[in-house]
Amino acid sequence: MTNLYNTDLDRNPANHQPLTPLTFLERAATVFPDHTAIVHGRLRRSYAEFYARSRRLASALTKNGIGRGDTVSALLFNTPAMLECHYGVPMCGAVLHSINTRLDAAIIAFQLDHAMSKLVIVDSELMPLLQDALALAKVAPVVIQYDDPEFDGARSDLDVADYEVFLSRGNPDFAWLMPEDEWDAISINYTSGTTGDPKGVVSHHRGAYLLAQGNALTTSMAKHAVYLWTLPMFHCNGWCFPWTLSAIIGTHVCLRQVRAEPIWAALADEGVTHLCGAPIVMSLMISAPEAEKRNLNHTVQFFTAAAPPPEKLLADMKEAGFDVTHLYGLTETYGPAVVNDWHADWSLLPPADQARLKARQGVRYLALEGLDVLDPETMQPVPRDGQTLGEVMFRGNVVMKGYFRNPQATLAAFDGGWFHSGDLGVMHPDGYIQLKDRSKDIIISGGENISSIEVEEALYRHAAVATTAVVAMPHEKWGETPCAFVELKPGHDVDEGALRAWCRDHLAPYKVPGRVVFTPIPRTSTGKIQKFSLRERAREFTD
Amino acid sequence: MTNLYNTDLDRNPANHQPLTPLTFLERAATVFPDHTAIVHGRLRRSYAEFYARSRRLASALTKNGIGRGDTVSALLFNTPAMLECHYGVPMCGAVLHSINTRLDAAIIAFQLDHAMSKLVIVDSELMPLLQDALALAKVAPVVIQYDDPEFDGARSDLDVADYEVFLSRGNPDFAWLMPEDEWDAISINYTSGTTGDPKGVVSHHRGAYLLAQGNALTTSMAKHAVYLWTLPMFHCNGWCFPWTLSAIIGTHVCLRQVRAEPIWAALADEGVTHLCGAPIVMSLMISAPEAEKRNLNHTVQFFTAAAPPPEKLLADMKEAGFDVTHLYGLTETYGPAVVNDWHADWSLLPPADQARLKARQGVRYLALEGLDVLDPETMQPVPRDGQTLGEVMFRGNVVMKGYFRNPQATLAAFDGGWFHSGDLGVMHPDGYIQLKDRSKDIIISGGENISSIEVEEALYRHAAVATTAVVAMPHEKWGETPCAFVELKPGHDVDEGALRAWCRDHLAPYKVPGRVVFTPIPRTSTGKIQKFSLRERAREFTD
Repeated sequence: MTNLYNTDLDRNPANHQPLTPLTFLERAATVFPDHTAIVHGRLRRSYAEFYARSRRLASALTKNGIGRGDTVSALLFNTPAMLECHYGVPMCGAVLHSINTRLDAAIIAFQLDHAMSKLVIVDSELMPLLQDALALAKVAPVVIQYDDPEFDGARSDLDVADYEVFLSRGNPDFAWLMPEDEWDAISINYTSGTTGDPKGVVSHHRGAYLLAQGNALTTSMAKHAVYLWTLPMFHCNGWCFPWTLSAIIGTHVCLRQVRAEPIWAALADEGVTHLCGAPIVMSLMISAPEAEKRNLNHTVQFFTAAAPPPEKLLADMKEAGFDVTHLYGLTETYGPAVVNDWHADWSLLPPADQARLKARQGVRYLALEGLDVLDPETMQPVPRDGQTLGEVMFRGNVVMKGYFRNPQATLAAFDGGWFHSGDLGVMHPDGYIQLKDRSKDIIISGGENISSIEVEEALYRHAAVATTAVVAMPHEKWGETPCAFVELKPGHDVDEGALRAWCRDHLAPYKVPGRVVFTPIPRTSTGKIQKFSLRERAREFTD
Repeated sequence: MTNLYNTDLDRNPANHQPLTPLTFLERAATVFPDHTAIVHGRLRRSYAEFYARSRRLASALTKNGIGRGDTVSALLFNTPAMLECHYGVPMCGAVLHSINTRLDAAIIAFQLDHAMSKLVIVDSELMPLLQDALALAKVAPVVIQYDDPEFDGARSDLDVADYEVFLSRGNPDFAWLMPEDEWDAISINYTSGTTGDPKGVVSHHRGAYLLAQGNALTTSMAKHAVYLWTLPMFHCNGWCFPWTLSAIIGTHVCLRQVRAEPIWAALADEGVTHLCGAPIVMSLMISAPEAEKRNLNHTVQFFTAAAPPPEKLLADMKEAGFDVTHLYGLTETYGPAVVNDWHADWSLLPPADQARLKARQGVRYLALEGLDVLDPETMQPVPRDGQTLGEVMFRGNVVMKGYFRNPQATLAAFDGGWFHSGDLGVMHPDGYIQLKDRSKDIIISGGENISSIEVEEALYRHAAVATTAVVAMPHEKWGETPCAFVELKPGHDVDEGALRAWCRDHLAPYKVPGRVVFTPIPRTSTGKIQKFSLRERAREFTD
């Protein structure tokens, strides 16, 4: 029988528009034109100015032949230009390709070629890096140089187009392009990929709209919140916060460099209410000299990801006036799509129990329809016992379009109707997930899986350990056994025997590292520990 | 050239799901199963219970042959059953038809027939009304009777199925149906229509999802907000708040009858943070006997619509601890799609100026892509002068699918790519709209448009006027002239001459009512003033 609710009731221009976060800025600039959108040092920009400059950028790009489906790259710090790129680039129909500023020239060259970049907007401090990359790349994008007024180093005197001059040629009233479909791409972000070529994660307008709103809803971010840019915007588009802030008419406080003194100054002087970062950012703030710290007369929300926040750090942050929320996600999920949604009564528990609960990654964002821990062979959920390892999988509207020009990787990632994260975790009885390892980081000893994270956590509880990374090393009898690399805290001293004894007191015997190596821990450009290089070193050990 | 960003990057089950607010309840029940979802008198229901009962309802409906595209009607007060209908009915694929409990039997019969209702869930107090309607209707829906524990009147002893028994036959683990497409209908609501047959406004899952989130974002509604049901849920699905609350894991406080004493009790005892209603609800609260009022130790958000809140009422509400926000919308826009988005510095203005600013309907919700005041002939925007009348028009994702089984009305409503609201208004220089009249309420005198609202506002400023309605009456020379109907406040006395003199002091001469009639003002079932009947009376007058 005909469903009359689908008869003569079609989509039309009056009742259907593509979802896109670009409309957030248009609304903010229309309703609160004078509200401060951007703070950067002494610079203050209103929403009217932010919108006009973004339209100028879109217009100038259009005049340079950039249009739908073209890639525009940004090699920028957390500056106003980077915020303008998040609107101006998609406003001309193009796709924003933000480049991690810590990458080497070869990887940047690979990205520019793979994304077929037509134009690059680059911070003048990064011009030499870009020049090196362009020397290696096949593409020859137009280069636009941004001179950040907050950069106090020597400026490049290369003869390239200036960002402000480029913008001045654009029309501030440019009739910017809506996406033709909300499924159109808004950005591409390359995963850092410790092995193999980087993959280009394509995000669409619909997902960016939903995750940007999801951030505000999930974190109860109210109208006129003030957000400090400690999280790099090249990292999954700053977890979509460049768009979230326009939705709630908030204020961006830019930050060229993540240092303790300007962070504390912004918190106190600009009335920052929210910021994001890995636990290392919290450590940086807490361990700052007392002279750099400031008293805050308001509670600040800190959203952390990448690693579970240790108990001592949580206690220190609470003491300093912060509420810490643990988030989790991947570039493939627009940044955070999982939140450790806190239960009020958990705050009554002893600090150690709170830290244990807060170490869990948590539950799906409202904008994510599905999150589970599945056996990747059978695609069945693991028991909700907090013990059984499985692969964390996502499904929903804040999962990427796929990998650019890589249909094989896309198909593999979406096999069985779920996005396979590659992260191993458990499902607790209350439905909260907890990561235990990356698939490739698991250590298999005598047929038993050992979570490298569990061994690391035991080591982190030792007072002398600053940083540790545990990987597999070969073992004649058991196949593999854990090998721990350790950086000690300044002024602390402990030897291998003492740390192994500590582990014997805190872990099952087969999980005790066969070897403890004291060494600086190598990290990737984004601050992730480079386990692959440690694995290579450990491969030469035997127990 | 092929857009590679649209190549091998299609929608698939891992990255695309229909948007629907039903997922909000599933998430709430999974993440916060023990949080109180519903308070009704002494009854407390957790999210786990709310979700299980909604699934039971969906399952029981399925067992009764109800499925995709079928209509299920609800003739209920603001009770837990009504909340369950907002989830359980669409969870079986059906469309929820909420009926205004104040309508007469003939109109209810019309609605049941037009919506082709298959099943009605009815409050036992309303059984006689439903029986009368069914006697007039052609359809013969299954009737399920809900016995509200808070109803203290005599119960119907008719031999019809009991709601709790019906639910008990449903499966609490029922695998409920997602919409096949987010464009699928979730509800139908009939406009009260002062002339002609009521029109059935069809809403879809996508719009309900977006407006439900929009409510939380627009009103900065934080996690665990407590919402009091002073707004009838049969009114545009309670402006989508039945869905909003699940998104933020809030608590519904039900209210069978809108009376001052239980409102104040809920505010104080249940910690209500938010409520909605017409200005009459505020008046009811403020004018309650002191013994019924309670001191509140927290600020409460009151969202009002339907008429601009008068200055005195705003001052009284502020004094009593309320923040009042003015919203505007229509059934065709899922309830509120426009908000008087308040600027912080406006709060520094004198109270009269604040009231003047707060009387404006405002700007679009984030979820509404377009709002403007257009000349309906040319479809061009009126000047932003706060003076020139035009028709308020909407476009975007929170505009209805259309009118059910009424393609002519649908086409007319969407003519020119905008939804025509029928409301006349002006656009202020700052982009805030203000309603001046319904199209049919405008008075045209000597070729000049007279806003009946403007004349009413002048009369309302007189201390003796309780309620007034101004309509056109014939005039020999000018064609039309205003005629004012007035209800006086108890204990006040004023004659026609004095009120006309008052108007001469406050209005342009041609706007002064030719006649002032002291009479009780007739209202529709939803409390709207029945101008059409007053117009009929005025037609017989001449000036």
